[in-house]
Amino acid sequence: MLQNIKILALQGKWLGSAAKTLERYKTEALANKGKFDLLVLPELCHTPYFPFEENDAHFDYAITKDSPIVEEWKNLAKFLKCVLVFPFFEKRAKGIYHNSAFVFERDGSIAGFYRKSHIPDDPCFYEKYYFMPGDTGFKVIPTSAGNLGVLICWDQWFPEAARILALQGADILIYPTAIGWDANEPKKIYARQLDSWVVAMRGHATANRLFVLAVNRVGKENNLSFWGNSFICAPDGFIIKQQSAEREEMIVSIDLNEIEQNRRIWLHFRDRRVDQYYDILNMWIDNGK
Amino acid sequence: MLQNIKILALQGKWLGSAAKTLERYKTEALANKGKFDLLVLPELCHTPYFPFEENDAHFDYAITKDSPIVEEWKNLAKFLKCVLVFPFFEKRAKGIYHNSAFVFERDGSIAGFYRKSHIPDDPCFYEKYYFMPGDTGFKVIPTSAGNLGVLICWDQWFPEAARILALQGADILIYPTAIGWDANEPKKIYARQLDSWVVAMRGHATANRLFVLAVNRVGKENNLSFWGNSFICAPDGFIIKQQSAEREEMIVSIDLNEIEQNRRIWLHFRDRRVDQYYDILNMWIDNGK
Repeated sequence: MLQNIKILALQGKWLGSAAKTLERYKTEALANKGKFDLLVLPELCHTPYFPFEENDAHFDYAITKDSPIVEEWKNLAKFLKCVLVFPFFEKRAKGIYHNSAFVFERDGSIAGFYRKSHIPDDPCFYEKYYFMPGDTGFKVIPTSAGNLGVLICWDQWFPEAARILALQGADILIYPTAIGWDANEPKKIYARQLDSWVVAMRGHATANRLFVLAVNRVGKENNLSFWGNSFICAPDGFIIKQQSAEREEMIVSIDLNEIEQNRRIWLHFRDRRVDQYYDILNMWIDNGK
Repeated sequence: MLQNIKILALQGKWLGSAAKTLERYKTEALANKGKFDLLVLPELCHTPYFPFEENDAHFDYAITKDSPIVEEWKNLAKFLKCVLVFPFFEKRAKGIYHNSAFVFERDGSIAGFYRKSHIPDDPCFYEKYYFMPGDTGFKVIPTSAGNLGVLICWDQWFPEAARILALQGADILIYPTAIGWDANEPKKIYARQLDSWVVAMRGHATANRLFVLAVNRVGKENNLSFWGNSFICAPDGFIIKQQSAEREEMIVSIDLNEIEQNRRIWLHFRDRRVDQYYDILNMWIDNGK
């Protein structure tokens, strides 16, 4: 397996149609052919952020696992000779939908598949209406560009998901994302919210001593301004590279050997007290019992 | 229960004897009498950082739960009318030792007790030699100054401990600490190590939407320079106050109502997938199975 991984993260924007939006990602990827081993697209890369409202017409955006779009990007992974994280709105069966992601290997085969497990519901983010909570569980995806722990957006706030993937040997946690500000929120809270989002994921890096990559959406859609600021951090939480709030691509090179080096100094895993962790399986604990 | 909590954190230094070291903490606390509801001392507050080496003579530093020092500080909590987190080297039975902390209520009663669960062992931090891993588990301690989640130093790297206390309704996670740089380490890594330590705990705040307080040791002892930088952060991870690497006291006021306000915006707990978390009870998972 490669130890030096070059990653192309395409912080993206909805361009009015699936065709135009995907064409731009494709153009950017092709322009960088040969310069990266791993390509990551943002959450729901072929749709607008339709959960801003509850409208059953939006289920039409969903595609099946064997749809022509999926097939095209699988072939593109092969053409680009890269591992590809392709997040999409999945129609699984009649009236059954998920927020999912494929991981394709550079030979065009399917390396893995994940369905978003933690589903948010907030004003302008009505995801519980659209997505059945994922049933894939958290399974590391071994690829030629590292052992990938693919999670999606809201999953990023849950240390359990990060830990379980780390325990399986994940090298990089990858969070395709669509997070932004609702225009009804006071602007003064923006900076703290953004930092809180970054810190939550940097925290997963420090606790698990692995790389963390978030690839967000940008642009204004309805009442939402997606905040970009995609970033990758090292196993000690240090931000290697972070983007602005504009549409842009990020190419970054990481050395997976840093994980071993870092864990030799910070031997957290050695000292876990799994005999004391059973209570974590509760939704809540009343009166300390 | 109070909602506005004034905290006195005494970032401390070993002054050559238990008597001198404790006398200084006492003087500082008495000078601020009436100005705080909660007083927190650093890890092993009555001893030097003896685990810098393995030496069985150092077991003599240990005190029992009913020792005069413990009795004196319990009485001091009553005199100061404050909740007190008192970390100490506990002699439990013949040859049985723990790294522990009492929480005293402002009426001089015992509110709770905790034994450090995660025990480190690194060059200059030979704690596995001295301390039996704690068997108290993670139990929130209800006090008149909030529901306290008391953990100790190395516990701060483990999201499971933070989460389990949060699930029991903890308002403030409190980490008495003794962390510093070993003089053999290259100085260029200092800034990143310090930030990693802060980020790990800020991560617990964002994931659990509660306050986090770390109270560290300062000063040089043998080959170690304790780095101070005690801090408290808000439920979104924002650093409310952080100290320097010098001996100093920190008084800070927090409003526990922020927890409810913050959780209404970030409804993480609602969406946990405990049906998918069983694998977290493994020490490690081979080959993704």
